[in-house]
Amino acid sequence: MNVSKQGTPLKYYAGELQCCGEYFSPEGAGPFPVVLVVHAWDGLGDEVRSKCRRLTEDGYIGFALDVHGDGTFHTDFESVQEVLQPYMQDRAMLLTRLTAAIDAAANIPRADTARIGTMGYCFGGMCALDLARSGGPAIKAAASFHGLLAANDLGDSTITAPVLVLNGADDPMVPLEAIDAFQQEMSARGADWQLVNYGHTLHGFTRKVANNPERGILYNEKADQRSWRAMLDFFAEAL
Amino acid sequence: MNVSKQGTPLKYYAGELQCCGEYFSPEGAGPFPVVLVVHAWDGLGDEVRSKCRRLTEDGYIGFALDVHGDGTFHTDFESVQEVLQPYMQDRAMLLTRLTAAIDAAANIPRADTARIGTMGYCFGGMCALDLARSGGPAIKAAASFHGLLAANDLGDSTITAPVLVLNGADDPMVPLEAIDAFQQEMSARGADWQLVNYGHTLHGFTRKVANNPERGILYNEKADQRSWRAMLDFFAEAL
Repeated sequence: MNVSKQGTPLKYYAGELQCCGEYFSPEGAGPFPVVLVVHAWDGLGDEVRSKCRRLTEDGYIGFALDVHGDGTFHTDFESVQEVLQPYMQDRAMLLTRLTAAIDAAANIPRADTARIGTMGYCFGGMCALDLARSGGPAIKAAASFHGLLAANDLGDSTITAPVLVLNGADDPMVPLEAIDAFQQEMSARGADWQLVNYGHTLHGFTRKVANNPERGILYNEKADQRSWRAMLDFFAEAL
Repeated sequence: MNVSKQGTPLKYYAGELQCCGEYFSPEGAGPFPVVLVVHAWDGLGDEVRSKCRRLTEDGYIGFALDVHGDGTFHTDFESVQEVLQPYMQDRAMLLTRLTAAIDAAANIPRADTARIGTMGYCFGGMCALDLARSGGPAIKAAASFHGLLAANDLGDSTITAPVLVLNGADDPMVPLEAIDAFQQEMSARGADWQLVNYGHTLHGFTRKVANNPERGILYNEKADQRSWRAMLDFFAEAL
């Protein structure tokens, strides 16, 4: 594959906010299904770009979203609560940031907009799930990697997109009660859901930079590889 | 593939008991990894044969065990408790029925006995897990399909085989507490474990004959296909 290291810039707007997304396309005539890839708390950076490039190897357009807007990328982990709080307090606002990308995907050459999935990491996992919960029928599948599972307050309509949750069993941000509540929510809303629990696995297991075990955050190569494989199986079926 | 419908008979002994196993081999020179396939409560029948044949398509020798001995196959579901009780009450006896098959596998032509995995259904899932728990180092991977998860009483030694549990989230035989206890057991024993929960899925989800929803037993085509795929991914990594 000859995929450029940087993606192709794609600006889109969530209300007044300019979001600086990037997409990565496979070679060939297409059309290709699109995966909206949602970054973790920090923002659209090289890690997300790398995931998008890998998606092209399996025939997907990887569209990296910019939820913060203006391409903002946070580097001070001490600010994580401050960065995330506005989204956690206003999930409707967050949803507008996400659904704006669905429309934007129509501007990607060779994109098959009848086949749009989404996936995300940590905070972005919650975003992918929120797209499944409330993003409308355009979303055909949603996968969350070590994502937060807490329901939003935007209603309990039927969830039509299949949902896959890839979870570290020892993730302190996803206690057993959160898993139970999530599974109950998904079942009650009629979602076609699957949840994979990886033993001996902490939060952030796909992030090679994650090395903060005292906070429950650590890269795990096996869980990284297994969850990627599970995601590919899932999208191959759903998209 | 040109695989005969019936497997090749392979008799082996668990103490005095004659067990009437069958194996199914891929074409080619090999050597091939071996998967010990453990039947559900009923016994070695056409369903298990069909699973073994499918395994050959991915390069595995499928070795169907006969845990009951003498090729016994039960058909009256009302007798299920009676059939299983002796095994549940004497897991050490059950283990001898299972480990006998490890030795027997050495008699299969073109078998690579350095690569033996196991999988099983319902009761057989528990058997596969018991092989991982106590079956010694010969077992390199164990997958359970809608299996019972209860620990045995044969010690808490380190589990060296990777373990994959494929579970129906609504399986009444595997309540949440059983999952929690199992995950804790696996973590405490150092197992490299994964558990997949399938939403809206009851007990027996891989069995096309399963149609007893009032007892919580029902075939589920999606979960059947997804769990087979997950098992193949798992064995591809471990065997």
